[in-house]
Amino acid sequence: MTSKGILFVMSGASGVGKGSIHREVLARVPDIKLSISATTRPRRSGEVDGRDYFFISPSEFETKIKNNEFLEYAQVYSNMYGTLKSEVVHTLHSGYDVLLEIDIQGARQVREKMPQGVFIFIQPPSLGALVERIHGRGLDSQQSIQDRLDACHAEMSMARYYDYVVINDRLEDAIKKVEAIIIAERCRVKYY
Amino acid sequence: MTSKGILFVMSGASGVGKGSIHREVLARVPDIKLSISATTRPRRSGEVDGRDYFFISPSEFETKIKNNEFLEYAQVYSNMYGTLKSEVVHTLHSGYDVLLEIDIQGARQVREKMPQGVFIFIQPPSLGALVERIHGRGLDSQQSIQDRLDACHAEMSMARYYDYVVINDRLEDAIKKVEAIIIAERCRVKYY
Repeated sequence: MTSKGILFVMSGASGVGKGSIHREVLARVPDIKLSISATTRPRRSGEVDGRDYFFISPSEFETKIKNNEFLEYAQVYSNMYGTLKSEVVHTLHSGYDVLLEIDIQGARQVREKMPQGVFIFIQPPSLGALVERIHGRGLDSQQSIQDRLDACHAEMSMARYYDYVVINDRLEDAIKKVEAIIIAERCRVKYY
Repeated sequence: MTSKGILFVMSGASGVGKGSIHREVLARVPDIKLSISATTRPRRSGEVDGRDYFFISPSEFETKIKNNEFLEYAQVYSNMYGTLKSEVVHTLHSGYDVLLEIDIQGARQVREKMPQGVFIFIQPPSLGALVERIHGRGLDSQQSIQDRLDACHAEMSMARYYDYVVINDRLEDAIKKVEAIIIAERCRVKYY
């Protein structure tokens, strides 16, 4: 109904499987693109500037931070990585959706700069199983449950800042749910 | 994440194909039920009270209207048809989602009584094609377009009262979109 794309941000704890979901969703869903990150890390052989990354110098990166050009950025070891707002906005204006896959800190930064995005939290299966068990079986008196409940609470309060939560019990189901979220959001009524 | 079901209300102009979509979605999606309507129409042979309809007398129906027991009701020829709020709420509390398929007037009544429902508008294909054409090709100078644009506007302003719009270009695609909306809404973060 509109020619402007939607920004989808997928996040979650490391090891939750968001990388696998991201790759599969990009392969299956039409008209959605990843965003190419900028980095100060040296280009490796076989990598192409503007395809794999935008390779820029540390001083250029610093300037872009000062000019507020990043949706999010982070230091990984001695290198900087970031998502340029101009890149994302350009893709959205050309009518494509964008799917960003970033860590929880990065997602928080993006949410501040582009709150109109659709934020999807990928949750580990153990937590989902725990919640289901608590809901399904009533009170569980074992003391050992408490630690997991605390962890559950911490994650749940994190999930509050997202629009959707997808529990990665089975990879194929999680991929289908993220696909469904993209298809549904494209049908969503926009008030314009 | 919660044991309470979601109310989905699917509506649209008559002839738009919402009946076919409704039947297929109920057949394919697990844990979603239709709601059994109440009616004053006489029971036909083979019909079972409480399975096909709740068959009630005109005076009972009148009492239920006065007691505000209907989510929506309408007269069709000389018979009354209505959706009992108690039926829908009972199904939702038992953990199932409910999919109502009703006309535009009915959907408006439901929206007033259960605004927490998810409202899906099924739009005829011609309108979708028109909108796409207007967006895709720029201004079209033909005067004959105006009537369709007016119709378009009327429908668009209707769609504003819904959460999602599904264009029924191809039945299979429309079914898949409604399925995706249900799956996505089940992943939606609830603020509780």
